[in-house]
Amino acid sequence: MQRQPILEFWYEFASTYSYLAAMRIEAQAKQAGVQLLWRPFLLGPIFKAQGWDTSPFNLYPAKGRYMWRDMEREAVRFGLPFYRPKTFPQNGLLAARVALLGTDRGWTPAFTKAVYTAQFAECRDIADPQAIAGILTGLGIEAEAVLAEAQGEANKTRLRRMGDEAQSRGLFGAPTFFAEDGEMFWGNDRLEQALDWAVTQARRAEWPG
Amino acid sequence: MQRQPILEFWYEFASTYSYLAAMRIEAQAKQAGVQLLWRPFLLGPIFKAQGWDTSPFNLYPAKGRYMWRDMEREAVRFGLPFYRPKTFPQNGLLAARVALLGTDRGWTPAFTKAVYTAQFAECRDIADPQAIAGILTGLGIEAEAVLAEAQGEANKTRLRRMGDEAQSRGLFGAPTFFAEDGEMFWGNDRLEQALDWAVTQARRAEWPG
Repeated sequence: MQRQPILEFWYEFASTYSYLAAMRIEAQAKQAGVQLLWRPFLLGPIFKAQGWDTSPFNLYPAKGRYMWRDMEREAVRFGLPFYRPKTFPQNGLLAARVALLGTDRGWTPAFTKAVYTAQFAECRDIADPQAIAGILTGLGIEAEAVLAEAQGEANKTRLRRMGDEAQSRGLFGAPTFFAEDGEMFWGNDRLEQALDWAVTQARRAEWPG
Repeated sequence: MQRQPILEFWYEFASTYSYLAAMRIEAQAKQAGVQLLWRPFLLGPIFKAQGWDTSPFNLYPAKGRYMWRDMEREAVRFGLPFYRPKTFPQNGLLAARVALLGTDRGWTPAFTKAVYTAQFAECRDIADPQAIAGILTGLGIEAEAVLAEAQGEANKTRLRRMGDEAQSRGLFGAPTFFAEDGEMFWGNDRLEQALDWAVTQARRAEWPG
């Protein structure tokens, strides 16, 4: 029997291009027959290691202005709503902790899309615990218990380790995709190629010799 | 009679992604019925204004490592040869001056592609005046006269003014495309969208009301 190829999807909640990828990756992966591993993480520490104390889109205004315009166009192209948040980048720490907890429980994809929708389609503040609680409740998840566990030491440590792993694997931005052979693809623009690579690589691994 | 839409193609000779765009833009523009304006310029002063004294691919090693791998994959995807130059970024000043001179004379596209081929397919040093002279001669152009004029004050000033214009229009990297309405697209990944925009925008301008 053919094993399903796997693709890791690393994303940061404040990242605009991660939003585009998160909203369309499931349909694309299904079509390609690829299993997704959702990997929420924090870009902040990775940017800090590069000497940046905020998003490069804030540090480099010309690049930032272009990004907002490009996001408008890209959202139209993918048929997604998009509003520029009042603050950027938003603090995605709580959302990332909760999303990480959900990866073993099956609700991370739905939770992730709901958080991105709240942020980029409904202009809400995702750092607000009430917003996150509301999203969990809306998904039929016990919000209070999940929020407590998400902010427990074990889960906080696990998220920090995700960050260390990201950095050690050469990740420098989001979204980033890894195929099983370690091949890395950066950016929503590379989603299709990452899926192609995952499929091709899995097929090759099955051929003897 | 329908007027042909116009797209400006701004490129830096040392830029790897500008190479990919330069080698495929003519066929794509022809298919789309778009007229190209070739705009060689120097990224160095624009990077300096952002506080960078070299390419961000050198300043941020993780990003740099990824770029070289991505270029290998993208070159395969577009059927182009690609070798990493021994030094990066190469000094494209002379090539840019010569290319700028050719824009009024019709040979800039051929010259540009030959310089990129020398750099990224033949591992040659494009800062070497002999290499540039050889390319000109190969195109049937009087190399000595062109090199002298390219390095004359008038042409040097013109290239500097191109840089000022680039900066004032919000350009921050290469390749960059501008449609006639000023809409800006950055990166080889946006070539198709830039051409689409140019075509759509020109059609709209023709419709009364």
